[in-house]
Amino acid sequence: MRMSRLFLRTLRDDPADAEVPSHRLLVRAGYVRRVAPGIYSWLPLGLKVLARVEAIVREEMEAIGAQEVRFPALLPREPYEASNRWTEYGPNLFRLTDRKGADLLLGPTHEELFTLLVKDLYGSYKDLPLSIYQIQTKYRDEARPRAGILRGREFIMKDSYSFDVDDAGLEASYQAHRAAYVRIFDRLGFEYVVVHADSGAMGGSASEEFLAVSDTGEDTFVRSPGGYAANVEAVTTVAPDPVPFDGLPAAHAEQTPDTPTIDTLVAHLQERFPRDDRAWTAADTLKNVLVMLRHPDGSRSPLAVGVPGDREVDPKRLETQVSPAEVEPFGEADFAAHPDLVKGYIGPAVLGEDGPTGIRYLVDPRVVDGTRWVTGANVAGSHVIDLVAGRDFTADGTIEAAEVRAGDPAPDGSGPLELARGIEMGHIFQLGRKYAEVLDLKVLDENGKLVTVTMGSYGVGVSRAVAAVVESSHDDLGIVWPRALAPYDVHLIAAGKDEAVHLGAARLYDELRAAGLDVLFDDRPGKISLGVKFKDAELLGMPTIVVVGKGFADGVVEVKDRATGDRSDVPVDDLVELLSASVREGRPLPPPT
Amino acid sequence: MRMSRLFLRTLRDDPADAEVPSHRLLVRAGYVRRVAPGIYSWLPLGLKVLARVEAIVREEMEAIGAQEVRFPALLPREPYEASNRWTEYGPNLFRLTDRKGADLLLGPTHEELFTLLVKDLYGSYKDLPLSIYQIQTKYRDEARPRAGILRGREFIMKDSYSFDVDDAGLEASYQAHRAAYVRIFDRLGFEYVVVHADSGAMGGSASEEFLAVSDTGEDTFVRSPGGYAANVEAVTTVAPDPVPFDGLPAAHAEQTPDTPTIDTLVAHLQERFPRDDRAWTAADTLKNVLVMLRHPDGSRSPLAVGVPGDREVDPKRLETQVSPAEVEPFGEADFAAHPDLVKGYIGPAVLGEDGPTGIRYLVDPRVVDGTRWVTGANVAGSHVIDLVAGRDFTADGTIEAAEVRAGDPAPDGSGPLELARGIEMGHIFQLGRKYAEVLDLKVLDENGKLVTVTMGSYGVGVSRAVAAVVESSHDDLGIVWPRALAPYDVHLIAAGKDEAVHLGAARLYDELRAAGLDVLFDDRPGKISLGVKFKDAELLGMPTIVVVGKGFADGVVEVKDRATGDRSDVPVDDLVELLSASVREGRPLPPPT
Repeated sequence: MRMSRLFLRTLRDDPADAEVPSHRLLVRAGYVRRVAPGIYSWLPLGLKVLARVEAIVREEMEAIGAQEVRFPALLPREPYEASNRWTEYGPNLFRLTDRKGADLLLGPTHEELFTLLVKDLYGSYKDLPLSIYQIQTKYRDEARPRAGILRGREFIMKDSYSFDVDDAGLEASYQAHRAAYVRIFDRLGFEYVVVHADSGAMGGSASEEFLAVSDTGEDTFVRSPGGYAANVEAVTTVAPDPVPFDGLPAAHAEQTPDTPTIDTLVAHLQERFPRDDRAWTAADTLKNVLVMLRHPDGSRSPLAVGVPGDREVDPKRLETQVSPAEVEPFGEADFAAHPDLVKGYIGPAVLGEDGPTGIRYLVDPRVVDGTRWVTGANVAGSHVIDLVAGRDFTADGTIEAAEVRAGDPAPDGSGPLELARGIEMGHIFQLGRKYAEVLDLKVLDENGKLVTVTMGSYGVGVSRAVAAVVESSHDDLGIVWPRALAPYDVHLIAAGKDEAVHLGAARLYDELRAAGLDVLFDDRPGKISLGVKFKDAELLGMPTIVVVGKGFADGVVEVKDRATGDRSDVPVDDLVELLSASVREGRPLPPPT
Repeated sequence: MRMSRLFLRTLRDDPADAEVPSHRLLVRAGYVRRVAPGIYSWLPLGLKVLARVEAIVREEMEAIGAQEVRFPALLPREPYEASNRWTEYGPNLFRLTDRKGADLLLGPTHEELFTLLVKDLYGSYKDLPLSIYQIQTKYRDEARPRAGILRGREFIMKDSYSFDVDDAGLEASYQAHRAAYVRIFDRLGFEYVVVHADSGAMGGSASEEFLAVSDTGEDTFVRSPGGYAANVEAVTTVAPDPVPFDGLPAAHAEQTPDTPTIDTLVAHLQERFPRDDRAWTAADTLKNVLVMLRHPDGSRSPLAVGVPGDREVDPKRLETQVSPAEVEPFGEADFAAHPDLVKGYIGPAVLGEDGPTGIRYLVDPRVVDGTRWVTGANVAGSHVIDLVAGRDFTADGTIEAAEVRAGDPAPDGSGPLELARGIEMGHIFQLGRKYAEVLDLKVLDENGKLVTVTMGSYGVGVSRAVAAVVESSHDDLGIVWPRALAPYDVHLIAAGKDEAVHLGAARLYDELRAAGLDVLFDDRPGKISLGVKFKDAELLGMPTIVVVGKGFADGVVEVKDRATGDRSDVPVDDLVELLSASVREGRPLPPPT
């Protein structure tokens, strides 16, 4: 493609709304363009990268025998009503009404439709296992679309679904998908981790996420030296062993004036109730945090979460636990509605479904029987000391809502956790029979008996992958495409105003293309300086930049590797062979001369 | 692909809602599946055909230098507000609101967005000409979605847009697209005509449609022996020459009791007012038809249409003329609001914007000055005879709303018209400056002066093409795919229960694929009869069917050409070479032996 003809205009300045490198660079380099919040157009260069990602995904799906189909994006309400997701998705779902008043939605994911399609076509165990997939445009009305195509409201996903007659079959389908995902993300070329995931609103049991490791990612994950890795929402707390009650002191309420915070409380304890063996710390206190849950049907209910005072409640972990309900603040009006609650001094005595307030009370898993806590006495300026879990109070259950911290032990004993950030690129679920039950997908088994099919669901963020690659592969000058994804193999620049150079460059352009290379040829006239052309080349990010310039008279051109910055002079006659070999073998570099 | 694994279930019975062959066969053969009215899923075989159509369209677009981009389907209201199409599209537009209350729509076509994108990127005449296109999912909330994917509410289109600095440039871009469309539709392989079209709500001047000739088509077109062809909405009437008023008799009102219809009127005239030179016919009468127009802003206004009594008003031609207004019946309440109108006896005297009713009055182009008419006298049971156009009455203008009939003269003098039906497959428009003006797309010309860009807009119905091919290429047994579009080149059947036959067929399957052929292999076990397998093969419609059966022991297989029905026995050892050559050369048939 000649750059004089390419539908492209690079920008010198970052777009005002761009926070992360991929957003900044993909817009500046003319790969995508914003149409509305979270809604983007793909320009010619961007569409080529997208096509390459799609081709990789398609190849690996075909390799595990998954068959491609394509569902509409505009879908009827009824199947999503049956699964309750019409309601559960809340404001994240784009809903609309057609001219006849029928309710429609823009599909956020297609479990229901795939289930119904298989039900429509198949009826016997002999038809299974089956894996079908689509690469298709999806819609979610995100509250905070951000970072360009990294989190859009219209985006492209590969979603596949497996159908098996029994759990062993599901496990095999799941593992096949997992292996395909490993190959896909290996080929996309960014660093990634596979983490245990909470399956959230999708239902189902086993689930893992593929996260591109990136400081700009929205997801936090943990990993241990021993190889444990999990989405922070999925981390389970290592609870201590219960302690026998024998010999534990009795609980006693004490005046603790002016101690509305954990810090003031600990200082007060240390001053007024010093212990012989060790100092008081925040971890000795039990903090009871109140929130309101907004349920999909619009109703609200209060929830109290008890966590050790040295930890905050992690909003994302809490949200995951209470989903599909959403978490809202416990406001003044809510306090007013519960006069038994004394702000800053709330203790277990008034909480719990059987307690005076009737507020559901869930505690951190560390609050095991026999642990001793300092906590609110439900009287202003007063706390209870030595309140023993299981003896003096019992919660309605436990909840994994406390923050996870670096150094916390991995649940599988594989060592202390470290925290890092990532971009969710893939998610695989063992859905089980949730959708098959709701939508009545059954097949006849070997004995002629109807059995409910068990399903898996597997997603790859295809458009997001384009951004994730840029997040992992760029520098101050622009994008650095890996060979497998670059829109063009070679960026060929005709430098200066010498006509012989321009003719020579045009000849090389033809020769390189004849050798099967995709070439972007900056044939813009000589009055565009080499500096400008080079800046564009580095911004656009093709793996190899070839400059036909002054040296051309002496039979050499300059070849630059975009990734390493290595430059070398290459004899014109060797160029085609050198570059073809480099592309063919996926080598990053023509060897420096 | 092994049929034992293919996600497919053919149906013996036609779907209840299927009226046309393509709908019937594409559903029965498992190419598509209905999800909601006018909304379909693509199953594996269908998706393969769709991909082939897309590849052909893409190749021909690239060949004229058009560059591919992709816009979102979910679009903001504002650009469509600027062009007034937010309103003009009326109930055909899917509209929705996001969580923040912003108005969005599902794009029915993208003139506005392409215009804004070019405005965003380009600013000089040097950037033009430019043609950009997308292959993308579009939405229209059709009042009557029908015929499966032939007229859906979610469908795939290729839409391209050209941008030029002057009219000559637009003409060149238009002709380049026209030539590309000829190649596309030649390659798709159905009979088609290119007809003059009315550009309707799109605005602009020149416009042609590519219609697949088909009795099941919704569009009527005309053609003449001399090569004139037009969409019936675009046919212009050949008006007679005006007649001098000198010597024309004076108009005279006459009692014509009980003549509320044209037939009764003509009979009455013949009986009571016989003429010497020739009998009265319906063509001597002027029929005034009243309708109400519903405008995009919701307001209504009456319109009177005067046509010769031997012709009906063609609703589609009328609709085209009054678009974006919609035509509604003139009801009892409307008559009541206009007491000057005497039903059955309405004449020009009360019509016209300056007349007593103030109702806009448009007449057929045949009503030229000096023509004499029998028409209503605005008194029950009374008509005026010898009412002369231009002397006794003047309409507010003319309108092309009368039906076009076989035998009418072509407007270019190329002979009598014949009528036929077609499916609109492509539409090319010289939009001109309509969108560029509204959205302010200007570039600097050679003299540094800002000039408004002139645009073309060009569409191909990509998903519809799959149906159009089937409409043109099927028989009682099923689909008959042309080689260029068939999902598989060869349908290979293993017949009977003989294990050697099944092993031999499997070997041939491998060999044919190794030779680069796409093969669908019916490897289902022997208890599925050859009859069933053959029925499926004929329904699915691959161009070549190979049966490995009894003859295999003697070294021959049977090869059947799906289109011609020709069968021949082919030595097993020759099969691969024979079929590869046949596919390579696009030959329909292995030669009968």
